[in-house]
Amino acid sequence: MTKFVYFFGAGKAEGDGADKQLLGGKGAGLAEMTRIGLPVPAGFTIAVPACAHYHSNKQKWPTGMADEVRKHLVRLEKVCGKKLGDPSDPLLVSVRSGAARSMPGMMETILNLGLNDRSVEGLARVTGNRRFAYDAYRRFITMYGATAMGVAREKFDSAFEEVKVRRTAPRMHTPLDSARTVHENARRVADTDVNEAELVDLVATMKDIYRREVGSAFPQAPWDQLTGAINAVFHSWNAEKAATYRRVEKITDLTGTAVNVCQMVFGNMGDDSGTGVCFTRNPSTGENRFYGDLLINAQGEDVVAGIRTPLHLEQLSHLMPDVYDQLLAVRAMLEIHYGDMQDLEFTVERGKLYMLQCRAGKRTPGAAFRIAVEQATQPLLSRAEAGRLVKRGHLPKKFADAAVRPVISREQAIMRIAAVDIERLFYPVISGTIGAETLRKALLARGIDAVPGAACGRVVFSAAAAEEHAARGEAVILVRKETSPEDVGGMQAARGILTQTGGKTSHAAVVARGWGKCCIVGCEALHIDYTNWQMTVGGEVIRQGDFLTLNGSDGSVYRGELPLEKPILPPAFHTLMKWADDARRMKVRTNADTPEDARKAIEMGAEGIGLCRTEHMFFATRERQLAIQEMIVADTLEARVAALDKLLPYQREDFIGIFKAMNGLPVTIRLIDPPLHEFVPKSTEQAQALSRVTGISVEKILQRADQLHESNPMLGHRGCRLCITYPEILDMQVRAIIEAAIACVRKGVKVLPEIMIPLTIDARELEILDRRTRSVADGLISAAKVKLPYLVGTMIETPRAALLANRVAEVAEFFSFGTNDLTQMTMGLSRDDAGRFLPDYVDQAKSGIFADDPFQSLDQEGVGMLVRHAIEKGRSSRDRLKIGICGEHGGEAESVKFCHTVGMDYVSCSPYRVPIARLAAAQAAILDVRIPVKKEPRVRRAGASRPAVARSASGARNGRTRKKPRRGG
Amino acid sequence: MTKFVYFFGAGKAEGDGADKQLLGGKGAGLAEMTRIGLPVPAGFTIAVPACAHYHSNKQKWPTGMADEVRKHLVRLEKVCGKKLGDPSDPLLVSVRSGAARSMPGMMETILNLGLNDRSVEGLARVTGNRRFAYDAYRRFITMYGATAMGVAREKFDSAFEEVKVRRTAPRMHTPLDSARTVHENARRVADTDVNEAELVDLVATMKDIYRREVGSAFPQAPWDQLTGAINAVFHSWNAEKAATYRRVEKITDLTGTAVNVCQMVFGNMGDDSGTGVCFTRNPSTGENRFYGDLLINAQGEDVVAGIRTPLHLEQLSHLMPDVYDQLLAVRAMLEIHYGDMQDLEFTVERGKLYMLQCRAGKRTPGAAFRIAVEQATQPLLSRAEAGRLVKRGHLPKKFADAAVRPVISREQAIMRIAAVDIERLFYPVISGTIGAETLRKALLARGIDAVPGAACGRVVFSAAAAEEHAARGEAVILVRKETSPEDVGGMQAARGILTQTGGKTSHAAVVARGWGKCCIVGCEALHIDYTNWQMTVGGEVIRQGDFLTLNGSDGSVYRGELPLEKPILPPAFHTLMKWADDARRMKVRTNADTPEDARKAIEMGAEGIGLCRTEHMFFATRERQLAIQEMIVADTLEARVAALDKLLPYQREDFIGIFKAMNGLPVTIRLIDPPLHEFVPKSTEQAQALSRVTGISVEKILQRADQLHESNPMLGHRGCRLCITYPEILDMQVRAIIEAAIACVRKGVKVLPEIMIPLTIDARELEILDRRTRSVADGLISAAKVKLPYLVGTMIETPRAALLANRVAEVAEFFSFGTNDLTQMTMGLSRDDAGRFLPDYVDQAKSGIFADDPFQSLDQEGVGMLVRHAIEKGRSSRDRLKIGICGEHGGEAESVKFCHTVGMDYVSCSPYRVPIARLAAAQAAILDVRIPVKKEPRVRRAGASRPAVARSASGARNGRTRKKPRRGG
Repeated sequence: MTKFVYFFGAGKAEGDGADKQLLGGKGAGLAEMTRIGLPVPAGFTIAVPACAHYHSNKQKWPTGMADEVRKHLVRLEKVCGKKLGDPSDPLLVSVRSGAARSMPGMMETILNLGLNDRSVEGLARVTGNRRFAYDAYRRFITMYGATAMGVAREKFDSAFEEVKVRRTAPRMHTPLDSARTVHENARRVADTDVNEAELVDLVATMKDIYRREVGSAFPQAPWDQLTGAINAVFHSWNAEKAATYRRVEKITDLTGTAVNVCQMVFGNMGDDSGTGVCFTRNPSTGENRFYGDLLINAQGEDVVAGIRTPLHLEQLSHLMPDVYDQLLAVRAMLEIHYGDMQDLEFTVERGKLYMLQCRAGKRTPGAAFRIAVEQATQPLLSRAEAGRLVKRGHLPKKFADAAVRPVISREQAIMRIAAVDIERLFYPVISGTIGAETLRKALLARGIDAVPGAACGRVVFSAAAAEEHAARGEAVILVRKETSPEDVGGMQAARGILTQTGGKTSHAAVVARGWGKCCIVGCEALHIDYTNWQMTVGGEVIRQGDFLTLNGSDGSVYRGELPLEKPILPPAFHTLMKWADDARRMKVRTNADTPEDARKAIEMGAEGIGLCRTEHMFFATRERQLAIQEMIVADTLEARVAALDKLLPYQREDFIGIFKAMNGLPVTIRLIDPPLHEFVPKSTEQAQALSRVTGISVEKILQRADQLHESNPMLGHRGCRLCITYPEILDMQVRAIIEAAIACVRKGVKVLPEIMIPLTIDARELEILDRRTRSVADGLISAAKVKLPYLVGTMIETPRAALLANRVAEVAEFFSFGTNDLTQMTMGLSRDDAGRFLPDYVDQAKSGIFADDPFQSLDQEGVGMLVRHAIEKGRSSRDRLKIGICGEHGGEAESVKFCHTVGMDYVSCSPYRVPIARLAAAQAAILDVRIPVKKEPRVRRAGASRPAVARSASGARNGRTRKKPRRGG
Repeated sequence: MTKFVYFFGAGKAEGDGADKQLLGGKGAGLAEMTRIGLPVPAGFTIAVPACAHYHSNKQKWPTGMADEVRKHLVRLEKVCGKKLGDPSDPLLVSVRSGAARSMPGMMETILNLGLNDRSVEGLARVTGNRRFAYDAYRRFITMYGATAMGVAREKFDSAFEEVKVRRTAPRMHTPLDSARTVHENARRVADTDVNEAELVDLVATMKDIYRREVGSAFPQAPWDQLTGAINAVFHSWNAEKAATYRRVEKITDLTGTAVNVCQMVFGNMGDDSGTGVCFTRNPSTGENRFYGDLLINAQGEDVVAGIRTPLHLEQLSHLMPDVYDQLLAVRAMLEIHYGDMQDLEFTVERGKLYMLQCRAGKRTPGAAFRIAVEQATQPLLSRAEAGRLVKRGHLPKKFADAAVRPVISREQAIMRIAAVDIERLFYPVISGTIGAETLRKALLARGIDAVPGAACGRVVFSAAAAEEHAARGEAVILVRKETSPEDVGGMQAARGILTQTGGKTSHAAVVARGWGKCCIVGCEALHIDYTNWQMTVGGEVIRQGDFLTLNGSDGSVYRGELPLEKPILPPAFHTLMKWADDARRMKVRTNADTPEDARKAIEMGAEGIGLCRTEHMFFATRERQLAIQEMIVADTLEARVAALDKLLPYQREDFIGIFKAMNGLPVTIRLIDPPLHEFVPKSTEQAQALSRVTGISVEKILQRADQLHESNPMLGHRGCRLCITYPEILDMQVRAIIEAAIACVRKGVKVLPEIMIPLTIDARELEILDRRTRSVADGLISAAKVKLPYLVGTMIETPRAALLANRVAEVAEFFSFGTNDLTQMTMGLSRDDAGRFLPDYVDQAKSGIFADDPFQSLDQEGVGMLVRHAIEKGRSSRDRLKIGICGEHGGEAESVKFCHTVGMDYVSCSPYRVPIARLAAAQAAILDVRIPVKKEPRVRRAGASRPAVARSASGARNGRTRKKPRRGG
């Protein structure tokens, strides 16, 4: 019989940390922490397959599961020495969701289960705190009613609020509270100020509410409570908000959630109790320092929900020094055990520490680099600190030894970084050109810097509005009191997120950090008025549609639209990229059309140009535009050649600039590609200008423009077809390239031009153009009496060229896969038009046909099959065929790994994606992944710190590099 | 050492009829005729490789060739008993071109070579006819000067004309001359009327012209004449007109021409001499009757050039009965020997018959069928006639025995027909609704019925104008005094051709017959004035641009635009198609969207519908258009469903009609395919109409139309993507299909619907739609309580679907290759736009990248590779996968053969192409051709009677059928 329930407690666990798919992330973490001897409350995990079974079998538990749960409950009661619902000394349990992948706040949790009208008094007696017992009962009724029975939470909350508004009392302020916070809080009553009698009344009121809303009394039997809670968690898996989250996050490989039933520990049993959420290193900066939020006398949900503004974790060292040292030891043990920065949850119950959760911590991109580099080069703890913790009996010796050495290898460090981390590193900051005084004047408020980076946009006050405006291409800042899972769509659509409440571990902060999206939380100066779509900040009214600028790095909120700029990269970035360069086999080139781009790309680490689009040069100035237009409207060969002669010097100068910038690195220059109609005058004004230059009538020019219109320009008269029709265009371009190269060679600049013929569909076609190219080039070179090696090759961007690659390679000296067009043609998908329907294809809830947008991440199954075929066939004809990719996939990590796997020599991408490609190429080389062509559900991670490939690759974890010797070609 | 020269004569020949590639068609024919004992003048053939060598080696003969020619000349002189240039009794030779494929009139011929100032007198003495000798010398100087030396032929011709205008004399009329011809000729002087003294003077004048134009005296040394003439023939291979002809005819497999040097025989040695061109059967009707043109006292060139209007061949039976009987025997021997109708050239010199050429004769489509069927079912000669010819000693016994039996097998008859013959059989005739009186009044003139079929269009007087107007889509009739090879382009562009001069074997007639293009020649009533772009016919002026209608079947020329209609098919067509149906393995279906089309296709022999495009039904009436438009502009699902509900009954009725017409044959119905914008209102008027129906504002309707615009609609939101977005469209269509089927079943009509999902790119996509289709269909069927088998399958029209066919076939029950779109995507070629550049790709002279337009004939190399792959992969998943093709290639013969080869179950094409597909499928089955994927130069034949495949397939010639047993699926 299948086992559905797994026990953990008293230092032993049936599962372990590798069982995430079975036990969920939380369950696996609890099991693992139990195994390594950390203080974890006992409990059991109902495995994921039970949830999957439940949903596919009309909400029925699998056969035998009820018995298993009963058996494990008995075992739990034994370990705890208490019984669920025992009127004298009741065991209370929490019932929590936990899928294999973190879905923060998406699913339900029920605490304090086991309380009923009788056991609440037992709890009161045992704890000597009747107020506490009734507070727990209130929470339980609320959570159970809302979660398991679907009663609107507000009904319970407002009953609580009613009690509070009847009273006002000052509350203690923590040193971290800002002056404004203190001021705000003065007007409020803390939960902790509600007294025992009030709570006893409140519980009665809440039970009435429950009976009214549900139609039956609040369940008193603990087993009923437990089954109801387990079902509630199961249900929450398919709730709207969870399904939306999975869709947004493209989580397709999960089948359900586990349910963790765990002995309750209480952080709200007085000032010797508390609860916290922390990170083993600073998730914003990466600093090697324990970091977290803490609430004294509170339950865990209070921290996560961000309702109360928490203390800083380090304050615990003053409040409970021994617990703090214990936590420091736990920090070291877990980071060493997992080899990565961890996100922990703990509770202190009357001075005793309990670990409730551990998982890889989300972090900012800058932090990701710093953590990876420091973990690979520096010890976690100083010798002194390690010694102190050992001496105090908190840190086992073997962990202490590990803690004073680097935690991971360089290879592991490389594997630890996700492409998305790099991308986010380049997120903008507020321009340095803005003077301090201007900034000061623009400052509207200050909140908690939850996710760094700057953002600017128009204020919207609802997720729906954010999605709506963003869909129109507007930049928006989503402003909310607090965010909830329902807001995820709008949060993703916004450029930045600003909330009134919550700390760095609040929903808004966690979700935004996952995306690397600028986020400021706990900005209590905001008074948001959802009804009137406005907010007041220090008397100033900001309306929906007004501009705000956020600086997520310091929590500043500015009025108006401040200019943004690219940030300065952290030192760890450069260190890690250097390691990556040492590790990879593939070269990384860039797509650059101008000397400026070329220089920029060199800075980003490019090792050549993989795609220089010559046609972009024609747009650069009015003169050039006129010349190309003149060429197009020309009636005769002579007129066309005359117009091309005007273009020649421009192109030559551009090439000289590019060659100089690349200084001997290979430069692949693609001959003209787009259909001619892209160049023709669109308006009467433009036509008039051209008419003045050419003497051709405006009417005729517009007629020619009209003539050039195509039904499907993507498949029209473009690419090398233009040179078959008008070989004089090829002549001019080759002349410009070779004359530029000759000029450089004469000045002592090394040059390696690779002339690339686009859109080939047949070897004979390529042969004709290759012959013409060489005839022009060789003529110039021999006349110039210089030595100038060059290559002639082609883009592989039509399925036919890929299919017949052996024939094509008989002519071409290199292949460059133009995977944008290859994807368009192979899938019959126009990129310009796919917006109408492709989202439906990638929408996992709607169809789930594709795991990813094939224009973002290469369709390895279909297009990839053609690429593999073409490489194999191409090299069968020409062993040393140079092969690269220049579609946008060349800068997408998974695609780059695919390129490595199929044996490409290089990838080429836009300058700012060069580092992503360098990293991905290194990761591919480290793993030497053989990505199977077979389609597998792939998941676009929400920006977690560890790349997907690392998770299942124990080889990499061991730091073993399996570099494959580079092939001959 | 390579042998370049091949001798024939005195009953022996070094080559034979199979050596066409080496000896050219003429050389092979001469060798073969010599071998079977026919009277052929002796001579030798300089093989094709010599010409190829000449052109690729700076106009140099290959080493050793000169010696070989000299040696063979000596042998020829020995056989003939005369010496070239002998002043007493000179041997004269003809020097003729002759490539492996007939290129009528394209290359040069020089006759009477060996004459010089001394030998002309010898010839005069030997023949006793000084006039004849000088006439021969005149001809030689003209041909040599014009051909070998490039002197404008007009210079010589005008010198001859000058002599003639000085004199006028009546000439003899033949009984065939029309009254008008006699009248015309009365004003002219025949060549034969020029007397000896005038010719002697003329020769002197011509030699002066030669010296003036060439710069040296006319060569007197026979060897110089011979080498000059051989070089002239070599040169003619690459002359503009020959290159153009090859380009137009897509002849790509020839490397040069052979040169035939042959003893001269003279048809112009008096009234016991003559020359003729004939066919072993009537090439227009196919009648089993010797048929040809004859000129008495003339040289062969006079017949071919069509300058003089010839006698009918049968008149020879009166003029020279014995020669005629001899020719009748030759006719039988050659047709039996070659197993096909032959085109012969002969000369009678002083009562002695010489055969100068034989080759497969071109014929009209109707004739092709009749000849093939009669050859396979009836004897060539009656027993009496065969006996008579044997008795007269002309026909050997073994040929007589063969002549009274069928000449070929049924399989050979099937192989004999080209697809193009069928196509042309359906060429229009003048509508039978036109009354006799109307026709009589419209009759403008009558000429010789060179190629049957009717044509109607605007008159143009030059080939250039024909091409120009045709390019604009206008129907034109090309009217010329006579046509020349330079006119070939314009002739092809015209709907019909009309010439003033020439007989059925003139250039115009031969070329037009090859294309099956309506042609009337020898219409001497025309007086064409090229200068003023007009002609006068019986006093009536016809200007360029006026309409004419031609009836090529009886030679009538009508003024104005008469309605045309489809012809009645000859009985032989039905006989042969029946044979083809018995021979083929593949089924032939049709593409039909309406009950009318379906019925039409059944008449044409269709065995099911392979493609029923449902969207065409939406255009049928205004109501339907409004309903589909209403669906498209609908804002909500409800509105969309309401609009679809309006369409449902229309579609259901259409399907009922189609199912009834097909009566149990399979009907493949494709769900909606084109992008929605094809249906939306384009104009404000249409939008207003829609606005009235829907209540949606005109502005919003036009906005929606605008919104639907796509950059590349071919790759846009179309095909099954529409059903992923709007599954309710699928619901409606499936409902209409199944409800129609149920209605038919209830009426006892058998139905086999195959629901086809278009544009699939992924198995999961298909799975979603397949599931939805089955859920709708099964619901209806089980509610109706009927038995209704149906299939769900997909079009394979994206490269991705083909690549992943094994996955797709897990869902699809059938594949139908949509090779139109598959070609577009595989080659990156938009069919709508390719007109701009594809001609350059197919233009053999310009690039020769493709042998054929890939939208006409399937690109077997590229697209074909995907098709093969998909079939193999598809059947690897589903053994019994039904596979067909529904692109337009399904009606193109070569493509159909490919479909057979790769194992398809059926092809589907438009109704009128069904017979072509039936024939091609039969031919493929007979040969069981394994068409290699490897690209080979393919040639689109100019309509010769024997299909290309038959030429090299001795198996077929033996009548052996190699049917492959049908595979399991």
